Amino acid sequence: MSSSTVPKLFSGYAVEKPENWKEPRLVQYEPFELSPTEITVKIKACGVCGSDCHQVCGNWGPFGRDNLIVGHEIVGEVVEAGSEVTKHKLGDIVAIGAQSDSCGECVRCKDHNEQYCKVAKVETYNTPHPKKNGFVTQGGYASHIRVNANFAVSVPDNLDIYVAAPLLCGGLTVYSPIVRHGGHDLTGKTIGIVGIGGLGSMALQISKALGAKDIYAFSRTSSKKEDALKLGANHFIAAEDVEEWAKSHPDTFDLVLFTGNSNKEADFNPYLEAIKITGTFATISAPKVDEKVIFDPFSLIKNGAVIAGSSLGSLQEAEEVLKLYADNGLKVWIEKLPISEANVKQALIRGVQSDVRYRFVLTDFDKAFNETK
Amino acid sequence: MSSSTVPKLFSGYAVEKPENWKEPRLVQYEPFELSPTEITVKIKACGVCGSDCHQVCGNWGPFGRDNLIVGHEIVGEVVEAGSEVTKHKLGDIVAIGAQSDSCGECVRCKDHNEQYCKVAKVETYNTPHPKKNGFVTQGGYASHIRVNANFAVSVPDNLDIYVAAPLLCGGLTVYSPIVRHGGHDLTGKTIGIVGIGGLGSMALQISKALGAKDIYAFSRTSSKKEDALKLGANHFIAAEDVEEWAKSHPDTFDLVLFTGNSNKEADFNPYLEAIKITGTFATISAPKVDEKVIFDPFSLIKNGAVIAGSSLGSLQEAEEVLKLYADNGLKVWIEKLPISEANVKQALIRGVQSDVRYRFVLTDFDKAFNETK
Ligand SMILES: NC(=O)c1ccc[n+]([C@@H]2O[C@H](COP(=O)([O-])OP(=O)(O)OC[C@H]3O[C@@H](n4cnc5c(N)ncnc54)[C@H](OP(=O)(O)O)[C@@H]3O)[C@@H](O)[C@H]2O)c1
Ligand SMILES: NC(=O)c1ccc[n+]([C@@H]2O[C@H](COP(=O)([O-])OP(=O)(O)OC[C@H]3O[C@@H](n4cnc5c(N)ncnc54)[C@H](OP(=O)(O)O)[C@@H]3O)[C@@H](O)[C@H]2O)c1
Ligand SMILES: [Zn+2]
Ligand SMILES: [Zn+2]
Ligand SMILES: [Zn+2]
Ligand SMILES: [Zn+2]
Repeated sequence: MSSSTVPKLFSGYAVEKPENWKEPRLVQYEPFELSPTEITVKIKACGVCGSDCHQVCGNWGPFGRDNLIVGHEIVGEVVEAGSEVTKHKLGDIVAIGAQSDSCGECVRCKDHNEQYCKVAKVETYNTPHPKKNGFVTQGGYASHIRVNANFAVSVPDNLDIYVAAPLLCGGLTVYSPIVRHGGHDLTGKTIGIVGIGGLGSMALQISKALGAKDIYAFSRTSSKKEDALKLGANHFIAAEDVEEWAKSHPDTFDLVLFTGNSNKEADFNPYLEAIKITGTFATISAPKVDEKVIFDPFSLIKNGAVIAGSSLGSLQEAEEVLKLYADNGLKVWIEKLPISEANVKQALIRGVQSDVRYRFVLTDFDKAFNETK
Repeated sequence: MSSSTVPKLFSGYAVEKPENWKEPRLVQYEPFELSPTEITVKIKACGVCGSDCHQVCGNWGPFGRDNLIVGHEIVGEVVEAGSEVTKHKLGDIVAIGAQSDSCGECVRCKDHNEQYCKVAKVETYNTPHPKKNGFVTQGGYASHIRVNANFAVSVPDNLDIYVAAPLLCGGLTVYSPIVRHGGHDLTGKTIGIVGIGGLGSMALQISKALGAKDIYAFSRTSSKKEDALKLGANHFIAAEDVEEWAKSHPDTFDLVLFTGNSNKEADFNPYLEAIKITGTFATISAPKVDEKVIFDPFSLIKNGAVIAGSSLGSLQEAEEVLKLYADNGLKVWIEKLPISEANVKQALIRGVQSDVRYRFVLTDFDKAFNETK
């Protein structure tokens, strides 16, 4: 028997509307009913992703509901399981990322590309759930969450839950394009990571753990140089020097991964100049909705350039990235904040400014939600 | 002994400046001196590439010289060879594309990517030649051309010279991304070709010859439907229907190749919606210099899209595409025009409007240049 019973109402820190994103408030909501294939998870930790910040402050448009609870780097304990669930049992520690369901039937779902399911992809928050009468999903700055059991992955015993949490969106989102476009073995390869925020910091660690020979960190200023070198880079280039540097470093990269919060100020062209003919420029950047990616077509063709977009990662890749951190004893660089209105507010405001080294993880859920059981 | 001696001055149809591109004139010019590794080719045929049209009418900026002679789909006879040339001998029929020299030493040159050489790539026309005191190269609407012997490829005996000519730029430029991103064997694959002009027509033939299961032609209007089907397509979609069509055809393409003259009016996004996760959207489009490629970053990431730029092809690929046409008895759809001021004018003016089905090839060089020997 689990230590907690499942409350009728779940509690969480919500933003009412984008206009007042700086005033998150504790709210309660009624979850959808548990299906036989679903589990309820009592949350213990939740990372604060750059996407949470884009979402709450209106960069991605209005919310699908009032009082939206964000958070999609979730670790917790299984406290309820539908009758058909075999993947997890009560008491298991599981992690949930930015996706909580998909159709399960389409070619993408069947081919370990469920993150690209077009039929019925459900994002962990702010998606009208097609199987739940359009219930708009609520995320992990909360006491509990209810999801398709397949979309929860087991957290290895030897992995700290506060390390696991940010891996489920941030870590996975960079792991997927790194292994798909660079390979699972980066021995002898040269990787560039642009934007040293939450995702960038994990991308440096992952590139190093997969054996890359040379890892370049690119950042807007020089302030993160020392950190970047500790995180795995062995070269550091500040944005103001990129253009000059790229001109004299053709055929350097097998893969450049762009993780910056915005494309607008970023000039992709210098990176295209420095990539091998067989290399790839990958981007996971999901900026303000009205931003466009703008290329010089000549820079694209004359370099035989390959530009790849990537979103999240598969469940299989989520398991792989957790294992990579567990096996290598790696730690995501995090800043813990006990969950509360004040600290969610702090995390969002500082998060919008990328003012964190390098990931906030909300903790102490037990304390915050004890009385709401 | 060759039938013709090499004149001191070469003759050709030149455009003085972009401002008067509609008035090509017969001019003479003094070629650079023959190096031991170079050959002189007496020209017999030259295709009219979309790039010639962009160049002459100023879409790519001012010329590097007055009286520029364009043309880079050249077939002719070797009439002079430097002392170190072993690849070709006098009397050989050879073809020259859009590139006539490169450094030969860099990693790209050594790796069959000489078309991307950054050290000393020489385009067949309008490049200040680094080994020739900056002589600005002159192209193939001319009596003769002098090039690095390595950049001339042998024309198979069983290939018509008027078929070979357009393959050296147009055919090669589509062949390279097709085989690099789709593979040399397209069995079971689905290919989309956008823009049914010179390059698009050859891309349809090549896709078919390489065994593609399904070939879709996309065109701005329906006027080329019948031709496209004869050229190899088994599906035809007019631009006005693309967006609707793409929505209901996810995961269709292994490769979409964009060959349109302009990106501006073309919306890449619908194609990204219809490509498989493992597929590629390749573009060779080299539009007006001030045009930019504009993407919705969300369309890029949510489809795991891969966008590849490509330019020309390697010498090895040039030999392959000639062999493919020879072996399969394929014919490029051409319209022959005996070379003259009037016909060069006609080819350029109609070429700028893409008003040709599907490639002009200039012929009868002997007649035009007989008296200028
Ligand atoms: N595609 C997906 O599936 C997916 C998943 C998760 C996150 N994301 C997106 O990935 C991005 C990064 O997320 P994150 O959690 O790593 O955010 P983060 O911690 O805020 O880091 C973003 C980094 O981008 C750089 N940056 C900030 N503002 C910028 C600007 N205006 N222009 C260029 N660069 C800027 C900064 O690096 P420097 O100081 O080093 O320059 C910053 O540290 C966000 O846009 C997020 O929405 C996408
Ligand atoms: N990257 C390289 O190495 C390389 C090499 C050679 C050529 N190119 C470039 O490839 C392009 C095509 O060359 P080409 O010789 O095939 O030219 P083309 O014969 O004129 O064909 C271009 C086709 O593009 C479509 N088109 C024309 N105007 C357009 C517009 N405003 N917007 C969208 N589509 C348009 C038309 O097809 P529909 O009628 O079917 O719509 C037209 O038949 C040119 O831009 C050329 O400079 C690049
Ligand atoms: Zn699906
Ligand atoms: Zn995220
Ligand atoms: Zn070179
Ligand atoms: Zn051309």
